[in-house]
Amino acid sequence: MEIGDLAKRVAAGERRALARAITLVESARADHKAQAAALLEALPKDRQALRIGLSGTPGVGKSTFIESFGMMLVEQGLKVAVLAVDPSSTRSGGSILGDKTRMDRLSRAEGAFIRPSPSQTHLGGVARRSREVVALCEGAGFDVVLIETVGVGQSETVVAQMADIFLLLLAPAGGDELQGVKRGIMEIADVILINKADGDLKAAATRTCGDYAGALRLLRKRPQDPDGFPKAMMVSAAENTGIEAVWQDLLHLRDWRTAQGFWDKTRAEQARYWFEEEVKTTLLSQLQTPAARAALAELGAAVAQGDKAPTAAAAEFLASLPRHSASKP
Amino acid sequence: MEIGDLAKRVAAGERRALARAITLVESARADHKAQAAALLEALPKDRQALRIGLSGTPGVGKSTFIESFGMMLVEQGLKVAVLAVDPSSTRSGGSILGDKTRMDRLSRAEGAFIRPSPSQTHLGGVARRSREVVALCEGAGFDVVLIETVGVGQSETVVAQMADIFLLLLAPAGGDELQGVKRGIMEIADVILINKADGDLKAAATRTCGDYAGALRLLRKRPQDPDGFPKAMMVSAAENTGIEAVWQDLLHLRDWRTAQGFWDKTRAEQARYWFEEEVKTTLLSQLQTPAARAALAELGAAVAQGDKAPTAAAAEFLASLPRHSASKP
Repeated sequence: MEIGDLAKRVAAGERRALARAITLVESARADHKAQAAALLEALPKDRQALRIGLSGTPGVGKSTFIESFGMMLVEQGLKVAVLAVDPSSTRSGGSILGDKTRMDRLSRAEGAFIRPSPSQTHLGGVARRSREVVALCEGAGFDVVLIETVGVGQSETVVAQMADIFLLLLAPAGGDELQGVKRGIMEIADVILINKADGDLKAAATRTCGDYAGALRLLRKRPQDPDGFPKAMMVSAAENTGIEAVWQDLLHLRDWRTAQGFWDKTRAEQARYWFEEEVKTTLLSQLQTPAARAALAELGAAVAQGDKAPTAAAAEFLASLPRHSASKP
Repeated sequence: MEIGDLAKRVAAGERRALARAITLVESARADHKAQAAALLEALPKDRQALRIGLSGTPGVGKSTFIESFGMMLVEQGLKVAVLAVDPSSTRSGGSILGDKTRMDRLSRAEGAFIRPSPSQTHLGGVARRSREVVALCEGAGFDVVLIETVGVGQSETVVAQMADIFLLLLAPAGGDELQGVKRGIMEIADVILINKADGDLKAAATRTCGDYAGALRLLRKRPQDPDGFPKAMMVSAAENTGIEAVWQDLLHLRDWRTAQGFWDKTRAEQARYWFEEEVKTTLLSQLQTPAARAALAELGAAVAQGDKAPTAAAAEFLASLPRHSASKP
């Protein structure tokens, strides 16, 4: 199919065209990359989805939350895309969203589109492709794009750079089990959701919610935070309570940031960030060749053992790089 | 002076030789860089200082704390070096440690050496030089190296990568002024010190200390944290109380981490990190030329305005880079 044609069909909201466009964006082939760039260029530029990043460790009920939250949106007539950024998917042999059975109703809903994480070990590559898949979904006219991630290394930071709003999902915890939040995530969360606020866990959820609300007050407020944000609140995805309140809070956050100019400013900064990341990733891709990786590993081991100084080892490595391959795009 | 000679005099602890060696390391001249590398290579490799990172916003009493803490160490017969990593020093027109009068006793003490931050805008450059100055101080036989920084951008993370232990100094705060900690710093702090726990502020300090102790309990424990760490504690640098307790805690932390194998492991990881950073920084240095910066700014503005997609703009930029200059070390 011609790229212009594909772009028109994606823009018209055709699911099969979107799936095909995503496959193109995720491909590593050089001709596919060029086609993907042309496709992105040809899509309507005036469409914006609400892009929501979502993180949470396994067991906190992410799939159940996405199912409840997504169904609520779909029932309001909104179109919802669910994507995953999971740099570990290759290693673990399956993706976090491969198991669509956990989102049974949403995966069959007319207004929803669920896409598992691409299998790819290199986070830089996953990041670029995920960002471009988000752009495809915006061009396809989705109202909300949910970008799910798991707490692996830098993946939250990467997702935060492609999201308008970031949610952290937690389970209720007892006083002695409170060390559940990976350091660094509090930094990017706009809303912390204590899930499973139902039945026997309700009291624990209330306590946990209070603890995190207190901790958030210790952090410096960012300019893009209206009064009361970042906030901690309770939901029960299983009993479907609090879900609508989350949505109202996200809309309030969006409206406030839009009115104050932070919405456009953040989007512009993110676009610039991804441009510079793409430049850097390409320049550093010469470190990914088998020969370069072997040399880095060997010299790195010598440095770690104290046999070579970092700067001297770096000079030795750089002198060994092929001179003319460096800046080829 | 010959480099071998200079190395011997630095290793013998001669202050003027150390100052000269630091000037060499901080120089941007190519011949100086080579001499600095040879000098670092020639220094004894079996000396280790306790490297302590210290951060805190202006007004929390960093200088007073360093004066009290440093004098206590000097009076125990230990040799103490105080360095600063301050990427903002050029812009603000003065360095955070230029004002030695704020450490009046320590700057005149026999066992102490105070070095202001090099004036240099590029954080990457500041980082490498600071790390090499730390290595010079270790080679010169210092027992403790205090690396001070201010909360500007990534400077805490950079300092954490060259420190064994990281301290965050805070002032007492009322219930409504608690948002003083830049998000992300809690991630790297081993000990949070509430300073000014004296006089009228003692009650507020006690409350603030309790608040941060509570917040630290919400963070996931790292493998390198023994029971009770990371911790929050109170000190008064002005009244010299709690200072000795801090030192005992740091020694406990050092001994525990050494016994558990984390000490050597962290040092090896840091050395490897700096090796890889040096490689990356050099490869990315081609983005620092005036022509490259102009092109990045222009394309970046187009991307921010939505006129170009990040990936397409990156390809355009990379195609414009001179082909043969890329990998020259």
